[in-house]
This record gives sequence, structure tokens and C-alpha cells, in this order.
Amino acid sequence: MNNGLDSFFEPGCVAVYGSLNEWGGLGRGVVQNLSEFGYGGRVCPVHPSRDQVLGLKVSRSIDEIEGRVDLAVVITPARTVPGIVDECARCGVPAAVVVSESFAEADLEGERLQRELVEIARRTGVRIMGPNTVGVLNVANGLITIPYLLGYNSLRSGGIAYCTQTGFAAAQCQPLGDRAFGISKMCDIGNKCDVNEADVLDYFADDPGTIVLAMHLEDVRDGRRFLESARRFTARKPLVILKPGRTEAGARASMSHTASMTGNDECYENAFRQVGAIRVRTWLEFWDVPKLLAAAPIAAGDRVMIVTHSGGAGVVAADVAMECGLKMATLSAAARERLTSISPRLWGNPLDLGPVLATLDDPFATQEEIMSILLQEPSVDCATFGIYAGILSPVQVLADMFERLKDKVAKPVTVYVYGPRLFSTAEMCRQLELKGIPTYFDAETAVRALGMAVNYARYRREIEATGI
Amino acid sequence: MNNGLDSFFEPGCVAVYGSLNEWGGLGRGVVQNLSEFGYGGRVCPVHPSRDQVLGLKVSRSIDEIEGRVDLAVVITPARTVPGIVDECARCGVPAAVVVSESFAEADLEGERLQRELVEIARRTGVRIMGPNTVGVLNVANGLITIPYLLGYNSLRSGGIAYCTQTGFAAAQCQPLGDRAFGISKMCDIGNKCDVNEADVLDYFADDPGTIVLAMHLEDVRDGRRFLESARRFTARKPLVILKPGRTEAGARASMSHTASMTGNDECYENAFRQVGAIRVRTWLEFWDVPKLLAAAPIAAGDRVMIVTHSGGAGVVAADVAMECGLKMATLSAAARERLTSISPRLWGNPLDLGPVLATLDDPFATQEEIMSILLQEPSVDCATFGIYAGILSPVQVLADMFERLKDKVAKPVTVYVYGPRLFSTAEMCRQLELKGIPTYFDAETAVRALGMAVNYARYRREIEATGI
Repeated sequence: MNNGLDSFFEPGCVAVYGSLNEWGGLGRGVVQNLSEFGYGGRVCPVHPSRDQVLGLKVSRSIDEIEGRVDLAVVITPARTVPGIVDECARCGVPAAVVVSESFAEADLEGERLQRELVEIARRTGVRIMGPNTVGVLNVANGLITIPYLLGYNSLRSGGIAYCTQTGFAAAQCQPLGDRAFGISKMCDIGNKCDVNEADVLDYFADDPGTIVLAMHLEDVRDGRRFLESARRFTARKPLVILKPGRTEAGARASMSHTASMTGNDECYENAFRQVGAIRVRTWLEFWDVPKLLAAAPIAAGDRVMIVTHSGGAGVVAADVAMECGLKMATLSAAARERLTSISPRLWGNPLDLGPVLATLDDPFATQEEIMSILLQEPSVDCATFGIYAGILSPVQVLADMFERLKDKVAKPVTVYVYGPRLFSTAEMCRQLELKGIPTYFDAETAVRALGMAVNYARYRREIEATGI
Repeated sequence: MNNGLDSFFEPGCVAVYGSLNEWGGLGRGVVQNLSEFGYGGRVCPVHPSRDQVLGLKVSRSIDEIEGRVDLAVVITPARTVPGIVDECARCGVPAAVVVSESFAEADLEGERLQRELVEIARRTGVRIMGPNTVGVLNVANGLITIPYLLGYNSLRSGGIAYCTQTGFAAAQCQPLGDRAFGISKMCDIGNKCDVNEADVLDYFADDPGTIVLAMHLEDVRDGRRFLESARRFTARKPLVILKPGRTEAGARASMSHTASMTGNDECYENAFRQVGAIRVRTWLEFWDVPKLLAAAPIAAGDRVMIVTHSGGAGVVAADVAMECGLKMATLSAAARERLTSISPRLWGNPLDLGPVLATLDDPFATQEEIMSILLQEPSVDCATFGIYAGILSPVQVLADMFERLKDKVAKPVTVYVYGPRLFSTAEMCRQLELKGIPTYFDAETAVRALGMAVNYARYRREIEATGI
């Protein structure tokens, strides 16, 4: 379903409108980011009085640019934006990202300017993303329309797409590059004057590089289309949604942030459940839950195995498992026999390996044997493992171990890492994520992510069974 | 109320029973930790066949030690523990930490051995902490009975006491030293064969170095005494409780972890509310919520101001504020006038500083002015500020700014820090915490901590008003 969003993510030529000042020029920021992020297409800065920027020729206007322009990025004062977008549309540019703010979220004049943009989109067919957005990025081709320079050089290519209505989730604000899970594309649809959540759902449903989509929605602009597009999407791929504005204060804040009318939260809750979307409630879950959905095979059932190195973590994890709809797996007699032959203490769930491994000469080999027994056990549908990162030396050993287990046994597995030093747990997480293991800084999120994946798997089985 | 717990935290002489092997000897670990942690009292290792360890004379038995022994630390096989504790008691040692495991949490034989310990405590008056514990530490005097070596050297002295029934919360497992909030004392009361939660509450209620106590409880052994001690405690200081076993699976796990009978969760919930305890639900909150309670003046009311550098964070924070019982503060006309004279965009709550500060030459001075206006505003009882840690250079500037504000305006304030690099956010958190500012890695916890502090303040006002 090509709804014109290709031009946003796969343009061959990008025109950039905005300040080219050496200090803080946002247009210059975009031009520089496109170069540093490795974008291979043509970049054409447009500015009324400059000749050159960062070694590139600057055009006075869009019609000076030779050849086809696929995407215009506009970061100019709000009052100038409609004129620029109109000119682009007249010159055949099919898509524009309007990064500028002070539109409907700000005041009446901004509202009027935003209506002008909508009018231009309707009249000319140009697709507009924004206004009031940080824009778009595509890790695979190096396309970036974001003017901020920090945080983008270490992103890894992978299966997670993020769509937001804020820059808070973008890589200049979050340590996405210090983690190692892979991202396909990101977009901030801002005030959604034209491109909205349904367009994005349709685009990513068909995007072969995207395995899971996480959406931050401050509202839904077209309920009917959203339900249709979301249902089509979730029949193929998991959809994670962070929808704030659950409370009156949140709703009011949302209005002045993106001019969103948040509406009744119960209606949203029901709608999300109906279409099989996974609703998260915190920003942490927004980044962390998709990792499992992108990495893991779909769960065959809801029976979870929890393995820790500390009983105190296991008890809390078991609570979370039950509260998010999982069941604790009961091991078969055969598996229990194999485990208790290793140690008589190995029989429970949660299973605390701490005391057992502490006494062994080669704890890693035994740990791998135990985890392999557990993951091969038919009564276990999914599992969470706790990993202690006290020192850096075993990081590689453990990463390799999990990779072997992942290749042998196709079940959803999450890992949480803990230890006395932040740099050590961060490095352990990163190494495991490089091997495609979804890794968490806390047991609670590691278990909750499994619960959400299992709920989605149940939805998929239901719709496949009923053929709806 | 001296209930004999002084000997656990302020002993002048510690006897250590356990393996003194160079590799992995847990008794040796304790001796080494005592030395590295700076304990100034006497340390007397006891071992049947060694003469020296780490430069210290080893005694063959407790009666060989000259002078008074205040605390015995026992890390020997379970079957040997009752004999050792009995001998210590007969020699007048008033307190023993039994680190050894395989007692009531393990099997029938362990249960029998634990009953022997209880019997010894009753008969001789020796107080026993554990068994199945990592023990005790006192940051102020360097006392530590924990055999693990990692994580203890960088703890800072301060007002938070932690009491758990697991080693998972201790510094070998959690990055307590990479943060900079101060800890007074920690203890793991394990299987609670003698010293239980009520003893600990009584002790810390009277401990002048402790401002707030966070307790991880797998069960309550003596409900009546707990209610009494908790009520007395919360009339003086805030009490944070993590009580897992909310679900059937959690309860079962708790039984095999610390032999705890978790009981009906609703009863606990009601009891905690009755005594004004603050119930948290995750390990993250267990470490993070006490920071605010230790640092902040008590809130005068429930009206919160939320200041961000990103609208997307503000909306989610407003939801959390409402959901945890806070009200959004409405600024007075005078405050609004002062703010809008800085920028016409400064009027809302949540207040998004991002777009305003981005255009200024000296954003820090303006930020301080804005925050100062907000904190002096009578309609604001408490506040959360978001801080962007993109690069390291402004860390010191911001830490100093918050220190000045804290000294000028005695209201509870939490800060959350975000940014593209983990090392940068970690360093920002640490520097702010060094100034006594409670700092968080996410907006949601920063707001929730305020909600909990405000609820506790309300409880305190109620009991003070009714004089109960």
C-alpha cells in the first residue's frame, strides 16, 4: 500500500530549508547529519543569501535545483512555512517534513498557519509530516532530517520502527546508540496536520525491514481508519502503543504539546485491546518491550520459567509474571530428574542458580546445561534469565552461551542484567543485544515484556483460528 | 529502645567463623572486607587449624580471644552453626550474624537446625540475625559482615537504611556505589529466626543516623508487634516497604527463598496503609524512592509543578502525577506575569522549557530564574525537573544551580536526567546526588517518588492533628 510515505524514508534527493549559521543553524545541522549519518542521495540546501555550506552548493530557491527533489525538510519561522511548502508542491516535490514549531500547539495564528498547510496538502497532493516534529530517520540508508547532532552515529540497523509525537524518544535524548538493539526507521509525526498514525501503520505494515512498530500517540485523528489500519498491521506484526493523556492533567498537557484532543481513555483502552495492540505505560517500556518482539519467535503458550541468581529477585519476578497473565511453568518429571542430578536444589520455579553455581569449578558449563534443559522442556513456553555482571571478564562467555541457546531453542527469552557497576551492566547488556538477545536492566521489565509478547501471540492465534 | 541490635551495628570486636582459604574463603572475605571498608574495631578470625590470615592472628576457639567479643559472624556448614552460636553465647557474645544457608528455607533437617538456633537464643539471650543472610553493614564505622568483595568501597555515608531478606539489594548486586546517595546502615535479616522486622523498626526508629528506612519483607512474623513498631516508626520517619508475594506464584517462591508464609496480600496492603508505610512494587522503587525521603523537607501540600525540556515527557509525567494522588499546581497571576515576561510561552504545567531555552544566549541563568520563581510560588508544594545531559560540560553548573535552589526553597524536588549517552546521564545523576538532590533516570519514578512523599506527609499531618 503505497500511500506516499516512501518519499519520506527513501528519497533520492533532499532539499533543506533552514538557517545555515555555523553556530546553531538548524538547516546546517540537518545537512551535517545527512553527511555524517552516511546518506548517499543528493542534499540540496536552499537559502536566500548563502552560496555554500559544508562544501555543498546552496540554491536560492527550489526551482534552481536540477533534477527531481523527493523530500523537502523545512525548519524556518512558522509564518514562512506555508509559502515554502506550496512552492515545493508546485515544483513537484511529493513530500515535506515541517520541523518548525509554533503551529496549532501554540496559538490561534499558529492554528491558522497549520490550516494553510492542510489546504496545500489537499490541493496539491504533497504529503506533509509535522509540523512541530524532529523528523525522520532511516538507519539503513542514512536518511536523517533531524537537526540535532548528538546521539546518531552509533545506531544499529535492525527491525524496530519507532513513531512518536515528540523528540523525547529520539536518539539525541535517549541512549539508543549505547544499547545495541537494531532500529529500522524512526519518525516524529508531531501535530499530524497531514500524515497521521494510520498512514504510518499502513507504511510499516508493508515495510520489509520493520518487524515491530512502537507508536507514541497523543491522540488518534481518524478513529475509523486507525482501527482498520491497526487491525491490518497487527495481523502481520506486533504493535506497541504508548498513549498518555490517561488523566485530565495528562490530557490538558497533550493539548498544548501537540494540539491533541486525547479523548476518553477507556475508549482507547478498548480499541487497543480489540485490534491486538500492546499498550505500554512508561517511556522505559516503550523502548524496551519492542526489543523482545523484534528478536523472538512467537510464544507457543503462556508458561514461563524464571531463572535467577538471587531468590529475592525471583519472588518479585514471579509476582510480575502472574500479574501480566503468565503462568509459572511446571517442569516434567524427566526435566526435574535431569536437574536434580546436577544438584538436589534445582527443582523450583523461580529457580535460583546462585547457591548452586557458587560451589562449582566451571559454573558457566553447568549454567548452559541447566538453561538448555529448561528451554528444551516442552512445558516451558518462554523464559527470563537473570545474569550477574560483577566483572567484565565473563561478558563474552555469557553472550556466546545465549547465542548458542537461542539458535538451538526457538522460544522467547529475555535476560536481565544486574551488578555493582553501571559500566559493567551496560557492557553486558550491549554484548548480549549484539547477539540479538533482548536484555533489560531490571527483572520486572524483562518479565513484563514476555507477558506482552505472549498476549500478542494469543491474539494472533485467535485471529488466525477465526479467520477474521 | 535498646533491643540488643547495637551489637550488630556498633560492635567493638567481631569474631569471624568461616573458611579462610585464599580462593573463595567466605570467612576470609569478611576479614578482608572489614579491613578494606575501614572498620576500626578488633577483628578476630576463629578457625580450628589456621594460625594467621591477612596479617591477623587466628584463634582456635572463641574462649581463646582476649577481651570482650560483641558480634560473631558465622559462615560455616549449617550443621556446625548451632554448636558455634551456643559456644559464643556461653562466652558472653551478645549477637551473632548467621550467614550460612540450608536452614528452614531448604529442608526438614535445616528446619530442625533453625529451631535449635531459636532455642539457643531463648535460653541464652544471644540475639541471632539470619540464618540465610548476607549480613550487616554500617557505612559510618566501616562495619561489614558481608563476605563478597565487589561493590563496597565507594558507598557514601548518609541517611538511608535498607533492611532486606535477600542479598539482591546489597552492594555486590546493585550499583549503589556508582550513585551518590548516602546510606547509613544495611542489614539482611534472612530467615528471621530471632531478629525480625519489628526489632529492626525499633532499632532504626531510635537510630540518629537514619532518616528513612526501606524494608524488603517476604513476610511479617509477628503481626501485632509489627503494627505497633511500624506505627511508632512512621510517627518519626518515613518507612518504605517492598512486600512481594502478592500473587500465588510469588508466595510459593517466597516460601522456598526465606521460608516465609506470605499470607493474604490485601491484609498486608491494609496494614501498611493503616501504619502510614509507603508501599513500593519494584526493586527500582525500593532503591530510588528513599532518596527523596532522606533528602527532602516534608511537603506542605499535594500541588506539583512539572518542568521538562520535552513536551512528550511532560504529558506522561502529568499522568503519573494524577495517578499517584498529586494535583497539578496552578500558578498565581503574579508568577505567571513574571514567567511570561521571560517568554510568552512560559505559562503551563507541565512547563516545557526546551523551546524557550534553545533560543537564549545564557540558558542556565534563565533556567535558574524560572525554577526560582516556580519554587518560591506559594501554590507549588513540590516539583519535578527534567535535565538534559547531552554532554558533560554543564554537569557542574547544573549541580551548583540545584544546590542554590535547594538552600533557598525548602520544598521537595526530584530531578530526572536523560540524554544520548549512559555515561553522561550517570555522571549527571552522581553529581546532583553529591549535592543532596534526589535524581532519577526516568520521569515516571521522579514523579512517583514525590507522590509517595506527599502521601506520607499527609499521614504525618493527620496523626499529628488527631494526636494518636
